[in-house]
Amino acid sequence: MEPPHIVIIGAGFGGLACAKAFGRSSCRVTIVDRCNHHLFQPLLYQVATAGLAAPAIAAPTRFLLRTYRNIRTLLADVQAIEPAGRKVVLDDGSTLEYDFLVVASGATHSYFGRDEWAAHAPALKTLADAQHIRRRILQAFEFAERAATAEETRSWLRFIVIGGGPTGVELAGTLAEIARHTLPQEFRRIDSRSAEVHLIELSDRVLSAFPAALSDKARQQLQRLGVTVNTGARVTGIDADGVSLQDGSRLPSHTVIWAAGVQGSPLGRFLDAPVDRAGRVSVLPDLSLAAHPEIFVVGDLANTTSRGKPVPGVGAAAKQMGHRAACNILARMANTKAESFAYRDYGMLATIGRNAAVGTVGGLQMSGRLAWLFWLCVHLFYLIGFRNRLVVLLDWAWSYVTFERAARIFTTPDKRE
Amino acid sequence: MEPPHIVIIGAGFGGLACAKAFGRSSCRVTIVDRCNHHLFQPLLYQVATAGLAAPAIAAPTRFLLRTYRNIRTLLADVQAIEPAGRKVVLDDGSTLEYDFLVVASGATHSYFGRDEWAAHAPALKTLADAQHIRRRILQAFEFAERAATAEETRSWLRFIVIGGGPTGVELAGTLAEIARHTLPQEFRRIDSRSAEVHLIELSDRVLSAFPAALSDKARQQLQRLGVTVNTGARVTGIDADGVSLQDGSRLPSHTVIWAAGVQGSPLGRFLDAPVDRAGRVSVLPDLSLAAHPEIFVVGDLANTTSRGKPVPGVGAAAKQMGHRAACNILARMANTKAESFAYRDYGMLATIGRNAAVGTVGGLQMSGRLAWLFWLCVHLFYLIGFRNRLVVLLDWAWSYVTFERAARIFTTPDKRE
Repeated sequence: MEPPHIVIIGAGFGGLACAKAFGRSSCRVTIVDRCNHHLFQPLLYQVATAGLAAPAIAAPTRFLLRTYRNIRTLLADVQAIEPAGRKVVLDDGSTLEYDFLVVASGATHSYFGRDEWAAHAPALKTLADAQHIRRRILQAFEFAERAATAEETRSWLRFIVIGGGPTGVELAGTLAEIARHTLPQEFRRIDSRSAEVHLIELSDRVLSAFPAALSDKARQQLQRLGVTVNTGARVTGIDADGVSLQDGSRLPSHTVIWAAGVQGSPLGRFLDAPVDRAGRVSVLPDLSLAAHPEIFVVGDLANTTSRGKPVPGVGAAAKQMGHRAACNILARMANTKAESFAYRDYGMLATIGRNAAVGTVGGLQMSGRLAWLFWLCVHLFYLIGFRNRLVVLLDWAWSYVTFERAARIFTTPDKRE
Repeated sequence: MEPPHIVIIGAGFGGLACAKAFGRSSCRVTIVDRCNHHLFQPLLYQVATAGLAAPAIAAPTRFLLRTYRNIRTLLADVQAIEPAGRKVVLDDGSTLEYDFLVVASGATHSYFGRDEWAAHAPALKTLADAQHIRRRILQAFEFAERAATAEETRSWLRFIVIGGGPTGVELAGTLAEIARHTLPQEFRRIDSRSAEVHLIELSDRVLSAFPAALSDKARQQLQRLGVTVNTGARVTGIDADGVSLQDGSRLPSHTVIWAAGVQGSPLGRFLDAPVDRAGRVSVLPDLSLAAHPEIFVVGDLANTTSRGKPVPGVGAAAKQMGHRAACNILARMANTKAESFAYRDYGMLATIGRNAAVGTVGGLQMSGRLAWLFWLCVHLFYLIGFRNRLVVLLDWAWSYVTFERAARIFTTPDKRE
């Protein structure tokens, strides 16, 4: 009898952990992703803000899985899932048949039905997004230097980040640092220190998933860096020239970044399972689907609870779910009992800038330099691959000493394809 | 009286050296480039073959010139030069008036009138080119793994490099190494070692600017790496499915790289000066133009001789010309005599792969590991910026030990612009 075939969709934290857990089994595994690389998403904002080169936070998926001879990596875009026929349909029309399916295709950004905003307020999810945002940020200063009027100069020197979650806070803090510390010497007409960075958040505090005291600390640290923190503000319009708020105010700007909403991958809709407002798929406690016990959903796409609390959409949770799904599939094959997913929460960290961060670790709250050092260690430790860690460490040490950023390079868009 | 205004077009080796030579003068200098970065072109093939990240070989031009308060860096695309009015026209329609102009806009690739080949055989000149070629190379192996027929697999595993100069030799050698050493473990259906790399050269030997004995050494080293060296071969057609040669043979391939021809920048045609077949502008011995003594041309765009011999289109020559042009402008302003350009030739080096290179230094010929080590030291030394050098050294040390390449990452083309 042929060993069972497991198909994993997505090579993010969830999919990769799941694949590795099958690495020493007798199953045949195929992992499908539309990118050739696994991305260390927590540092993506560093690529967007020119602190790191793209290859520093990504590694080829097939390289990471090269030693597992039973795992095949496929670069392909999944078009559909057919649970009735146990088939995954790929972009070239070919299909993959599976005995078990793990859907780990994650989340994408959501403009809450205002998709026309996407052109003016790019979001940060992929390396291509990060390189696009990097270009927009660096070009804004260049255009400011060349602007014909004082008004245009001010527009180019106003940066707006929408969404006060960890990504928005990281982007706003880093943008303020670039304007204040990295660029001042380099321009002759503009003073880059006069750049404004606005962080706009709908709720009444930034980092709303953190304890309120840490939200306050984060706001203070952002303000110290020069960020204007605008909470309780609803965006009603975004166009090429700026952002309109519900209170009637208008912020002229050509550089708006969207860090406000996420939404489950569209593949969730193929699974004959309930999908919540954010596009996440409801799963049983063992991460499988009620109607399809051979399908598991893990990571940001899964809507699940652990000990009565909703599991947050973070990398650590996705990793743990990926591992749990693999163990449960192996248990199913061995006719032993699958276990419920239990999230081990090691805490939360958000960085704001140089020596500035907030975090909770084992019930302990911390902020400032200590939190930042802790954040640094954790991220270096988890960043996949020994080489990447060294390069990142070197780049960071260098930036810390000099305020220079290692990747202030952009290329003009490729018109060839 | 206002100090004279010098405009430099191009921030390559020539333009940057020229700007720096004005750095301690009283002139006002504006350096214009359409990229935000100075590029260390000799290592561009490493970005194309996934050995280095783009930011490792480039640095923002305004960062490199930040300490010279009299130099202004402008990100702009020059549309035209009006020598009669002493004006440079920029992409937004604005103009720059100059007292002296240094044109250092370099060369671009030439398909010898067959521009329809460009879509199928990208050339390597900019970082965007390098990232495009990197994607094509990495995707070829991915498509081979997914190909439906054995014939298609073979097509995807056949790489063709056209042009046996230093760039072509470097690309072909590195491609063979990737197929033989980097990838073998990672694919399940294909054997990456079965990939063919063809180097096609019109003349009867590779590296024709080098002594014939070193061309032979280079050919041997390429063949040892597994490259098929096809000299005396004329390309008569390139399309999406392969390359046709004059002898009637056909090489089916989807990955063709053009390293055959260069041509002076189109700005050369605005200068009221004779332009040769390769688009290079004839200059007087002091690098200025006969009809316009206030215009200088340096680098790959200049057609000049030194001690009766044509000056080669290499970075060292461009640097020396940029410096000479600046000194001659300062001499002109001081009413002292301008000097003729004299090229100091330190030798030539071309790398082929791991421990494989050829070179001449001070009349001495070398090849193999010694030449390769020498090449390594020279390139690390000249690569601009302390940080870049360290990162590059680290990446290279790591690849040398592991055969892994640091930047095997590509992103899907950005559809947003």
